[in-house]
Amino acid sequence: MRGTSILGQAVARNPRGIATICGDRQRLWAEVGERVPRAAAGLRKLGIADGATVAVLSMNSDRYLELFFAIPWAGGAFAPLNVRWSAKENAFALRDCNATVLCVDDAFLTQVPDLQRDAPGVGALVYLGDGKTPDGMIAYEDLISDNAAMEDSGRCDDDLWAIFYTGGTTGMPKGVAMSHRALGYGSMSYLAMLPTIEDLKFLYIGGYFHFSGASAVFYITIVGGTHVILPKFEPVPVMEAISTHGVTNMVLVPTMITMLLNHPDFTRYDLSSLRTCIYGGSPMPEALMEQAAKLLPKWEFYQIYGMTETCGFATMLRWRDHVFSGPTASRIRSCGQPAPGVEVQIVSPDGTTLPPGKLGEIAMRSDYLMSGYLNRSDETAEVLRGGWMYSGDAGYLDEDGFLFVADRVKDMIVTGGENVFSIEVERALFQHPAVLEAAVIGIPSDEWGEAVHAVVVRRPGTNATAQSLIDHCRDLIAGYKCPKSVEFREDPLPVTPVGKVRKNVLRDPYWENRARKIG
Amino acid sequence: MRGTSILGQAVARNPRGIATICGDRQRLWAEVGERVPRAAAGLRKLGIADGATVAVLSMNSDRYLELFFAIPWAGGAFAPLNVRWSAKENAFALRDCNATVLCVDDAFLTQVPDLQRDAPGVGALVYLGDGKTPDGMIAYEDLISDNAAMEDSGRCDDDLWAIFYTGGTTGMPKGVAMSHRALGYGSMSYLAMLPTIEDLKFLYIGGYFHFSGASAVFYITIVGGTHVILPKFEPVPVMEAISTHGVTNMVLVPTMITMLLNHPDFTRYDLSSLRTCIYGGSPMPEALMEQAAKLLPKWEFYQIYGMTETCGFATMLRWRDHVFSGPTASRIRSCGQPAPGVEVQIVSPDGTTLPPGKLGEIAMRSDYLMSGYLNRSDETAEVLRGGWMYSGDAGYLDEDGFLFVADRVKDMIVTGGENVFSIEVERALFQHPAVLEAAVIGIPSDEWGEAVHAVVVRRPGTNATAQSLIDHCRDLIAGYKCPKSVEFREDPLPVTPVGKVRKNVLRDPYWENRARKIG
Repeated sequence: MRGTSILGQAVARNPRGIATICGDRQRLWAEVGERVPRAAAGLRKLGIADGATVAVLSMNSDRYLELFFAIPWAGGAFAPLNVRWSAKENAFALRDCNATVLCVDDAFLTQVPDLQRDAPGVGALVYLGDGKTPDGMIAYEDLISDNAAMEDSGRCDDDLWAIFYTGGTTGMPKGVAMSHRALGYGSMSYLAMLPTIEDLKFLYIGGYFHFSGASAVFYITIVGGTHVILPKFEPVPVMEAISTHGVTNMVLVPTMITMLLNHPDFTRYDLSSLRTCIYGGSPMPEALMEQAAKLLPKWEFYQIYGMTETCGFATMLRWRDHVFSGPTASRIRSCGQPAPGVEVQIVSPDGTTLPPGKLGEIAMRSDYLMSGYLNRSDETAEVLRGGWMYSGDAGYLDEDGFLFVADRVKDMIVTGGENVFSIEVERALFQHPAVLEAAVIGIPSDEWGEAVHAVVVRRPGTNATAQSLIDHCRDLIAGYKCPKSVEFREDPLPVTPVGKVRKNVLRDPYWENRARKIG
Repeated sequence: MRGTSILGQAVARNPRGIATICGDRQRLWAEVGERVPRAAAGLRKLGIADGATVAVLSMNSDRYLELFFAIPWAGGAFAPLNVRWSAKENAFALRDCNATVLCVDDAFLTQVPDLQRDAPGVGALVYLGDGKTPDGMIAYEDLISDNAAMEDSGRCDDDLWAIFYTGGTTGMPKGVAMSHRALGYGSMSYLAMLPTIEDLKFLYIGGYFHFSGASAVFYITIVGGTHVILPKFEPVPVMEAISTHGVTNMVLVPTMITMLLNHPDFTRYDLSSLRTCIYGGSPMPEALMEQAAKLLPKWEFYQIYGMTETCGFATMLRWRDHVFSGPTASRIRSCGQPAPGVEVQIVSPDGTTLPPGKLGEIAMRSDYLMSGYLNRSDETAEVLRGGWMYSGDAGYLDEDGFLFVADRVKDMIVTGGENVFSIEVERALFQHPAVLEAAVIGIPSDEWGEAVHAVVVRRPGTNATAQSLIDHCRDLIAGYKCPKSVEFREDPLPVTPVGKVRKNVLRDPYWENRARKIG
């Protein structure tokens, strides 16, 4: 598997089709097929030898997307950097992956001096913007116009294609090393899931530095689809892009769907071209799912569960399993069944494989696992064991192979000797009509060790009390699982770039000067 | 990629679903998941060590299907033998692949003495039938009942999984060696093509010894679908099986579709459960395609083109490209675009890659090519060059990447210095209402070198003359391409097991004691 063959397939299949739409700029696949080997030649002149690393710090753009292919074409490995990170964190990543070339757009020019100081291995800077090329940098477009196409480097199979950095907000960044084979086969698994591979138009709103934002770069390209690129998620531009370009496929997180459905201009846009909406990052509350199915009747939802280390994909809850009544209604609370090519098992702390219904750690095996964490053989050996990736997530499988993710192990609350998975409490809260957002955390309690605590944002116009929410939960879940206290907020809860509630931010103030036993 | 993980995925995804339907016998995936590791243990006791070969000579059955997984589970390689071959040809294959165990059903017991004499390396015989186990053989069901499950051998990736023999009717058989990785990834490519991977029920009518018959064993199992197994193609049992079991997927060749549509009982069966009908082996005449689309409106047709050496799959003409008017109508005459994961190029005799529109040899590259021909490094080196599989087929690509297979190179007719591709002439003939079957061959001509000659079966009740057919062609194609002579037959044309017209049988009588320049 040569990663660059993915681009070749798009050019062969759909040369006259639109490859990228970015602002006012559109390019055909035939053009992208011409530009990439020239950009690669330009990178090569900047000293990229086989196996060297090129980093990118940029908002999503068509040029950024081309680099996913130009860098391996030139023989290099690709490190997209996190746009939310500080210069200090990004400098760490640049040193960690030994990057010798850094590509930046206008949004990150201010970080450049710090990055140059702290990552002196970076010898060349490529400018991805449209303005005047800053001193000391070379324009990406000049790489293309000044160089003839080079032959593909031929890197493939186990060669390193990309390094995705994770964990920056809660610890030292780790570089997840993905091979040509892993990214190629992971993409085939995504395509197997999709109901059609014809005329796909994918709208990006997640950053390419995160796997959930980047995965479609590969699988949409294989089938010669169109990449519609927005720099970030904002409801109006997203709705405009869907209706203007006839977008067919997207990846969202549930909080974004809420923002679309509740937006005052929601009804002004025709969003009916969209067919496949993949969501993940956090479970979908049932009430929201029902509202979405009603207001967006043509959208088919697919939940996916995975992590960067598993190519972002391991299980899928297919559209037909999004049902709210009947004998299979419980499946809506799962994250579905293993994707084609993936095996999932639940493992006890002593390493035993557990039968259906038993809670343990979720482990996944496929041909698209990471090669390992870059330069971190100890941490790699901790999670990659016997060909399985150990997720750190707790969960169980039902009799039909549906995976229920209990919650992050570290997010489990131990109260009065009982384990409470916050997700179960959150699901109960979301069934209350006044609850717009909810996060459940453990806070210190002299009586219980930890106490179940809920942080809630109420829907505008409602004013349910803490006691009414606790009573509501008591009807649905065991007493020891119900919140002991409820805290109301006016602003949206803090979320990560992929839309997960940042529970550490909610939890940390309670735990100052105390040690939690878990996590 | 471990081949046995394919079975594991079916068991995990659909343990309570029906795995196999064979005659009156049905088994669930959970059962098959229990049986295979026991059968593997039984094979191991028969002396199968890692890398040893087990051959099967049998009509399709549920037991045969289990062997696709039990043999690699035991560490072995699998050689399914051609049910049309003589004992002499099969003995050659047994020696060639060094088989030490042979599994046979009742249909082939009579070949056993000859095979034992001519392939003395076969040390153990397994009986796949339901009758009394013949002396000197061990019953397959006893392998299962007498042995506890063994651990999976763990064979994977480049390890040999299966050897498919080709070419027996026209030359010495060649064993096409397929690795675990090739069969695994080829299957992912099939799944990417399918519009859905849910609740698939596949009806087999092609023998498992041929890749077109076996390919679904792998990809239907990955998604936990149901295998409905018939021993061979006969219109009534096929129509009965579709309506009884709600079959959703099939592979047919065009001659079989003709036989279904023209069968007097066609209208008695409800065939509307079928969604995806893959056809291949030979192009579909336009008139037949139109008739099928009218009489079977729920069936979606996918043409595939490939060869055993490319995992049976390389390009696909999707349903949406089966159109008969408008600017893309020409595509119906192609075999579609490269499948996901496949690159196709057209190569001139001097090795140059040719641009769209230019005729040359079709070469294919993917991660699911054969490892090579078993024990035939010279023949392997002839066709597998620089990572590409050279097909021996002539064809061209259009501007949108659609592949037009001109015909087998050896089937090209050189007449008066002009090259005529018989398929083009056949297509013209098929547009005549009286033509039921047609094959065009080159016969010796003192004037032209070769002359274009048509062999035609007329529809019942019609009696078009040779001259009227020639005149009809003259309206459609260049004069030098039109048949110089037409021969009418009453019986169906001779076809290979996969439904291709055996042109050598038609051609050879004309060429006795003469050498053709081509082929």
